[in-house]
Amino acid sequence: MSLIQYLTRIQFGFGAISLLGDEIRRLGASNPLVITDRGIAEAGILDRVLSCLGASRHVLYDRATRNPSESSLKECLELWTGEECDCAVAAGGGSVLDLSKAVALLASHGGEFADYGVHSDGLRKIGKVAPHIAIPTAAGTGAEIGRACVMTLENGRICVAVDLNMIADCVICDPELTESLPPDMTAATGIDALSHGIEAYLSTSENPPADAIALDCVARAAKWLKPATENGRNKSARWNMMMAALEGGMVLQKSLGGAHAMATPLEENGIHHGAIIAVVLPHVLRFNARAAAGRIRDLEKAAGTESHLFDWVDMLNKELNLPKRLGELGAQGKDIPKLAELAAKSHLSATNPRRAGVDEYRELYAAAL
Amino acid sequence: MSLIQYLTRIQFGFGAISLLGDEIRRLGASNPLVITDRGIAEAGILDRVLSCLGASRHVLYDRATRNPSESSLKECLELWTGEECDCAVAAGGGSVLDLSKAVALLASHGGEFADYGVHSDGLRKIGKVAPHIAIPTAAGTGAEIGRACVMTLENGRICVAVDLNMIADCVICDPELTESLPPDMTAATGIDALSHGIEAYLSTSENPPADAIALDCVARAAKWLKPATENGRNKSARWNMMMAALEGGMVLQKSLGGAHAMATPLEENGIHHGAIIAVVLPHVLRFNARAAAGRIRDLEKAAGTESHLFDWVDMLNKELNLPKRLGELGAQGKDIPKLAELAAKSHLSATNPRRAGVDEYRELYAAAL
Repeated sequence: MSLIQYLTRIQFGFGAISLLGDEIRRLGASNPLVITDRGIAEAGILDRVLSCLGASRHVLYDRATRNPSESSLKECLELWTGEECDCAVAAGGGSVLDLSKAVALLASHGGEFADYGVHSDGLRKIGKVAPHIAIPTAAGTGAEIGRACVMTLENGRICVAVDLNMIADCVICDPELTESLPPDMTAATGIDALSHGIEAYLSTSENPPADAIALDCVARAAKWLKPATENGRNKSARWNMMMAALEGGMVLQKSLGGAHAMATPLEENGIHHGAIIAVVLPHVLRFNARAAAGRIRDLEKAAGTESHLFDWVDMLNKELNLPKRLGELGAQGKDIPKLAELAAKSHLSATNPRRAGVDEYRELYAAAL
Repeated sequence: MSLIQYLTRIQFGFGAISLLGDEIRRLGASNPLVITDRGIAEAGILDRVLSCLGASRHVLYDRATRNPSESSLKECLELWTGEECDCAVAAGGGSVLDLSKAVALLASHGGEFADYGVHSDGLRKIGKVAPHIAIPTAAGTGAEIGRACVMTLENGRICVAVDLNMIADCVICDPELTESLPPDMTAATGIDALSHGIEAYLSTSENPPADAIALDCVARAAKWLKPATENGRNKSARWNMMMAALEGGMVLQKSLGGAHAMATPLEENGIHHGAIIAVVLPHVLRFNARAAAGRIRDLEKAAGTESHLFDWVDMLNKELNLPKRLGELGAQGKDIPKLAELAAKSHLSATNPRRAGVDEYRELYAAAL
């Protein structure tokens, strides 16, 4: 096990979950609100987490929705107040972790989530939030180390709050918790981790420490994503994919690019982020090939391939049985104009190494459909 | 210029110093205590820093000593209180930056520095310290991103306080400020930056993101330390050495090894840290050669050399006109038993890839004398 301190305190390794009780006490807390979803509870992961709380009391919320929703948030806050909770402990995928950030924010700051959204000048209102601990149960989004929280409001709108103050006080990455993740989810979340390394490395911001970590993320995912998908009990594969996902989460603070710009608008239809990324990433890499030739060569070297990076990702997708076309995921041609407009406007597009506007995104969506 | 957020907020690049006023306002401060030394003032660097304070009032302390001393600390605290300062802005090398951390600590926490030392159970007493900004004027120690503060007490003892809360709220790395650093200091501080990358990478702790950054640190220093020493106005060389030093400071949070264990006891005699590191590093690398063969090969690859790493560092030292023997630096054979005992007891030795005890350090010191 190791302790890593970049962005926040990270306990990493098989057995790291056993430190949960210590970490709660370290925050001066004794009555955590444990936030999770039914899937995590049914997979037995929740029991493992609860067994590591130590002597603490706790309150359980296990009804987190597939995408973080304001109604879940309100239920959590009611529990928090009614039961006098003093920290949040989230165990789950990106949605559960995001929900927990929102709970920590509103439990300490009051008000409505929309008050803190990026589009309502919410950033300057976010100070130190309530103590919270993030325990990822998949290796993918990097949300465990993330500063962003995406929330579906009761009015159906999606609202995003982003601030470094929202990063968890402690992240506990225990690869054991990912061992029961089925192959399709291992593949879809893993390709997301890989994409964070690739897109951050190619993005136009200047951040050499992030670049160094990104190459390590890509090298690890390239080596271990297939073994992890083929045999979920392969401990080395689970360890390395969890590390790749953490590193991907660390580096996406640098900035991302076109594949993530394309993915966000599609998620509003409830399609899985990782599956979308798998489909669009090769198209965006082909689009970027000339503009970022040198950096793409670095990535090919890190991935250990002599193919073009876009061909390599394409092949990897095939080997992982990931979807090949957005059509399979329910996307429709008639939506392309709207999607392209949203992608072109996205801040994620602004750091793509080749300028992409509405026309370019329209072509990219059409090619990926 | 770029904004980098690992461990803390870092403004990096030529011209970054122009953001100083904004960063002070961002901390909600308006009356900084500017801490520096006579050398920085005489080199004109202080004027450049003061010109970027914006409309703020400020109070100046320009008498920082070569090693941070409790008497300087007390003078600073008197100014802080008397002039109602609300943040510290430190411009200088490692000593000035350490002094500033101590000012931020005591201005917010009260008491004596010794109360917070690692040997008096001081760590648990350190909470959020007063706002402070670190502006390095050399590329070496990495103290700008450091959590440790070394202080010579009035009773002559050396006391160390270490806590993540002591990391500066903002680091401003502007390579322009290092352009007037003379060749001998460029070389001695630069070899220290290189050594952080090397020793952190070889240390036995497990921290892949640190390892990735460490390799980048070594590659940069290997390429740019000679050009920076040969021509201080080489902007690419200054930029890259400042980045290597920052990266070295980031990764030494992982842990270090035998060369730093050997250097610390010698510094009590006032010898320059970088010069000692230059002399002892090749000896420690030769000592580690078998125990860490694989990792040393990674470092040789990063450095772009086909020689043994210890030979390469030895050669680099020669090309940089760095001292070859500890004797040149005033160390004496009769002190070796005492030095070896201190090195063997050091926590820095505990993570060296090959176990070294008193006997081994005695031989290493003798070989380096």
